Amino acid sequence: MASMAAMASLLSKSPIQPLSLPKSTTPFPPPHLRFPTLTLSRPRISPICRISNNLIEPDGGRLVDLVLPEGEPRDVLRRAAMAFPKIKLSRIDLEWVHVLSEGWASPLSGFMRESEFLQTLHFNSIRLRDGSVVNMSVPIVLAIDDAQKRDIGDRRRVALVDASDKIVAVLSDIEIYKHNKEERIARTWGTTAPGLPYVEEAITNAGNWLIGGDLEVIEPIKYNDGLDHYRLSPAQLREEFSRRNADAVFAFQLRNPVHNGHALLMTDTRRRLLEMGYKNPVLLLHPLGGFTKADDVPLKWRIKQHEKVLEEGVLNPETTVIAIFPSPMHYAGPTEVQWHAKSRINAGANFYIVGRDPAGMSHPIEKRDLYDADHGKKVLSMTPGLEKLNILPFKVAAYDKKQMKMDFFDPSRAQDFLFISGTKMRNLAKNRENPPDGFMCPGGWKVLCEYYGSLAAPLDGSKLRAAVPA
Amino acid sequence: MASMAAMASLLSKSPIQPLSLPKSTTPFPPPHLRFPTLTLSRPRISPICRISNNLIEPDGGRLVDLVLPEGEPRDVLRRAAMAFPKIKLSRIDLEWVHVLSEGWASPLSGFMRESEFLQTLHFNSIRLRDGSVVNMSVPIVLAIDDAQKRDIGDRRRVALVDASDKIVAVLSDIEIYKHNKEERIARTWGTTAPGLPYVEEAITNAGNWLIGGDLEVIEPIKYNDGLDHYRLSPAQLREEFSRRNADAVFAFQLRNPVHNGHALLMTDTRRRLLEMGYKNPVLLLHPLGGFTKADDVPLKWRIKQHEKVLEEGVLNPETTVIAIFPSPMHYAGPTEVQWHAKSRINAGANFYIVGRDPAGMSHPIEKRDLYDADHGKKVLSMTPGLEKLNILPFKVAAYDKKQMKMDFFDPSRAQDFLFISGTKMRNLAKNRENPPDGFMCPGGWKVLCEYYGSLAAPLDGSKLRAAVPA
Repeated sequence: MASMAAMASLLSKSPIQPLSLPKSTTPFPPPHLRFPTLTLSRPRISPICRISNNLIEPDGGRLVDLVLPEGEPRDVLRRAAMAFPKIKLSRIDLEWVHVLSEGWASPLSGFMRESEFLQTLHFNSIRLRDGSVVNMSVPIVLAIDDAQKRDIGDRRRVALVDASDKIVAVLSDIEIYKHNKEERIARTWGTTAPGLPYVEEAITNAGNWLIGGDLEVIEPIKYNDGLDHYRLSPAQLREEFSRRNADAVFAFQLRNPVHNGHALLMTDTRRRLLEMGYKNPVLLLHPLGGFTKADDVPLKWRIKQHEKVLEEGVLNPETTVIAIFPSPMHYAGPTEVQWHAKSRINAGANFYIVGRDPAGMSHPIEKRDLYDADHGKKVLSMTPGLEKLNILPFKVAAYDKKQMKMDFFDPSRAQDFLFISGTKMRNLAKNRENPPDGFMCPGGWKVLCEYYGSLAAPLDGSKLRAAVPA
Repeated sequence: MASMAAMASLLSKSPIQPLSLPKSTTPFPPPHLRFPTLTLSRPRISPICRISNNLIEPDGGRLVDLVLPEGEPRDVLRRAAMAFPKIKLSRIDLEWVHVLSEGWASPLSGFMRESEFLQTLHFNSIRLRDGSVVNMSVPIVLAIDDAQKRDIGDRRRVALVDASDKIVAVLSDIEIYKHNKEERIARTWGTTAPGLPYVEEAITNAGNWLIGGDLEVIEPIKYNDGLDHYRLSPAQLREEFSRRNADAVFAFQLRNPVHNGHALLMTDTRRRLLEMGYKNPVLLLHPLGGFTKADDVPLKWRIKQHEKVLEEGVLNPETTVIAIFPSPMHYAGPTEVQWHAKSRINAGANFYIVGRDPAGMSHPIEKRDLYDADHGKKVLSMTPGLEKLNILPFKVAAYDKKQMKMDFFDPSRAQDFLFISGTKMRNLAKNRENPPDGFMCPGGWKVLCEYYGSLAAPLDGSKLRAAVPA
């Protein structure tokens, strides 16, 4: 409930056009009339004609766009939806509406119906009508409770509203089916241990039913947090990559501050792509912007830190596009890394950098990592529907005490290297200590220290955790 | 341990040729020399040349056969294996050796290595080198403990021995990897609740490592329990279907006694296949013969019951092949039904009958079924690698009190029908009561009553359960 209230103030009333995108010759979104009459059946999936032929094809062949064009169609649907049964969206639900609306989950056209849900749980992939297979590893579902199910009765469409009851979207041709939480959790996380952040936030107290259907979103989802200009849709990213004449796009998913080891890896990847014959590889630096667990650094501070990394020239702004990935975080390891990769195909990336233990965390109740650190990249290399994506395994970088900089680990002189984990990095910043010179650019480190300083909390971990805004 | 001891007495020293198979013009197994020298690397996967073109192609294109030919090759390998590190097989391990050796899991050539294990857990399917996909939903793995792993060290092959230390098989080109039991259980069963029969029997106390590799089995696995003549391999079944000139084979997996509702369904399926234009559809009546939970009716009594069903003409022996499927039972619902279907493709079946809640059971600790009763058939219809198999959903049969026989349920006169569940059937037999006339053939019912009589246990469920031989 608290998160829903928080969300209300973030919800935009007048969507802001992205600021960072250069003006293209055609306005964005394109003035295609997808909603001439009030036929609220399946939303039309419009071809985005401006997709460059150089970029990888989106899943299903066409990028899904579920946002209504500006003007009358929005008003018509908003008025019609007043009469529909209403479902109030949680913060995470709204993030999924955002994700779906822009086609990150192409070819999904809305919250999953049961056949998509079952294929996701059992096969991490969905078979399309033409027999082709696309990857889909995390359920994108909307839960309702018994009372909501009764309210809906046999009606075929519902309105989705935000915390302040503003209509955000309409779900049509709906299907309601059982939400077996235990099975969903076990098959998605490979554990049912209590304490999984996404489960506690979005599943444990959710209703016992799921409602799927075709989604029509009234207007682009905005958060009014000063970061909306970073929230580029897959179509906008594709346009940007085309404008830059990228002949390769390599995506780097992250939810942590960027240190010089990350930067080295990204720079080195570009070098390798150039060696492979690409003329202009472009990096998509793509921090996750949705729900994260309480002890992760919040989005706004991470973005400040990333800005410093670009300002101070650690990464080259000419060959880097920084944008926010609107998905919430599952922390589901090898299952979730597939989603992180698949969604970037839809944004035009044909190379994906995968690290050690992607989307991993500590086991919530045992003293070990939840996932084997190598499973993410192994699973990714075998994933149905990702055959067209080039997987680039992470090389291990560490602090080289002799060279006083981050470098790729050389096992022949292991004693020269210092490993600084994310936990160690956060603890240094919490304690206002400095990492070794060359670990992170000074401006970036200062942002981290400011963030922990702003918490004004004792250094005890549990209290700190509670003090971090969720 | 108890089950291993029990197994020892079952292990054949001189394999018996199947009794029920008519003599074919070529001896079985065919005299192909697959083991000319002691090169214990990858076992050769021999094409079974006698596969009729009418029958569905096995997964991977060729039926795997991992049993050495009679004569010297067996002696050579057995002697060589004396020097290898030894792994003692549990009862269920040996059942899997049996399953693998005959190609039920084609194209698997041995216990899974990590890449096959991960694909099974995450995708319920395995991609082959040519890019094609075969279904594989349950892990077929062999667990070892820390001490065994140390013993093996960096050696490349191990001998698998039975409870009496007789060498059963050799595993070559081995790979040892971590056995994350929690993740395996969660992803296979969709729950980690205590009390899952297969988990308690084969996983909870198993070692923390899995060992995969290529399997060579010294001689056909036999149990000497008077039922080996029913244990037809996929190759033998294919030969039998060809001999009968079957142009369609429909498989019926079961682990319960056959009542007249089942029989009606099978008879009706044949009628429908004839209507579809097939000239000679043959039924594979295929009771599961491996591990089952304590309160299931044991194999020997089920087979006696099935024999009566055929003797008394409820099913037509002319168009029915009865054989034992050697796999152990997982009770993993929609995950396991895929294995039940996939293995029957390898035995030549191109139609698979799927019922309500296949491979299901009660939730071990909650008062509900573990799986949604419809998920099995839904999942099966969408399963990667099973596209070539025709799925025939079960029609619901019940006892028609007016006609005094089992018939397909007619919802327009629901009050005329009586549903007799497996539990109710078992309780009637336990209490030596009779079901309504026409529910089961008299001889079959007598077998059931004899079985429960033989337990000579009080009617209290928990004690009865303990008294049933596992």
